[in-house]
Amino acid sequence: MGDQFKADATLQLESLFQAMPPVLAMRVGSADFDGERLRLHAPLAAHLNDKGSAFGGSMTSLMTLAGWGLVMLRLQRHGLRSDVFVADSSVRYRKPLYTELQAQAELAPGESWESFLSTLIQRGRARIGLQARMLLPEGEIAAELSGRYVAMAKG
Amino acid sequence: MGDQFKADATLQLESLFQAMPPVLAMRVGSADFDGERLRLHAPLAAHLNDKGSAFGGSMTSLMTLAGWGLVMLRLQRHGLRSDVFVADSSVRYRKPLYTELQAQAELAPGESWESFLSTLIQRGRARIGLQARMLLPEGEIAAELSGRYVAMAKG
Repeated sequence: MGDQFKADATLQLESLFQAMPPVLAMRVGSADFDGERLRLHAPLAAHLNDKGSAFGGSMTSLMTLAGWGLVMLRLQRHGLRSDVFVADSSVRYRKPLYTELQAQAELAPGESWESFLSTLIQRGRARIGLQARMLLPEGEIAAELSGRYVAMAKG
Repeated sequence: MGDQFKADATLQLESLFQAMPPVLAMRVGSADFDGERLRLHAPLAAHLNDKGSAFGGSMTSLMTLAGWGLVMLRLQRHGLRSDVFVADSSVRYRKPLYTELQAQAELAPGESWESFLSTLIQRGRARIGLQARMLLPEGEIAAELSGRYVAMAKG
């Protein structure tokens, strides 16, 4: 995947984000996409709970958004216009987070973008499993999400 | 549980909420507690996704907060000072939501406040399973969460 594609795709995704009030309220910063993984960040100050760490709901919201954005980036790359919905997710909260929120989403083990895309093209609807993590500065994980997303072709 | 307790407890909970930036950003309104179930609401306008319905991350965040608030109310009632954390959760998204967000949290089947509280008093730490739902106006469910929360006694 070329660097120019990655930059253009990220800009398109950021403009989708900017149109969503909850994403603005979460103060989600620039998206970082390496061709496989999408990373999103947001300032801790906007997500503090009563214990001075990141609110669990905020972590899950950012991970859910990162997964959604990753699917949108794949669809863009293939010129497919679809609505994408989160279908289900499981989250484990492992450690409190006292720094900037960083969520990273990628394909779940055993899943394939190729079969997701070919099913979507053939049937107008497909499902993909992703995983997302809240990263701690030392490389540890504050929380992890496993979720499924559904794409439905438009028009 | 007396009405006065319920009113006082709800005010205390609302003041905790007001001190959390993500809860303010979510525009969570007044809490409604009937002694068993806690209901929270937030305006759809603050939670719109790209499809004109409520963002999945917002629904999960509000359900997670409702569960946390319900545990805090129980602890207040028994005069217990503890930190409460969400430990894990699973969410199923069933239908899109095009109206105000309403999350309702209650005890999960098979769980007991009595054993949670007695474990917390004896060991300084306890875990409780809750369920939360996003309610649709017609009585249907937009999403449902099953989650576990941990309380740790303070001081």
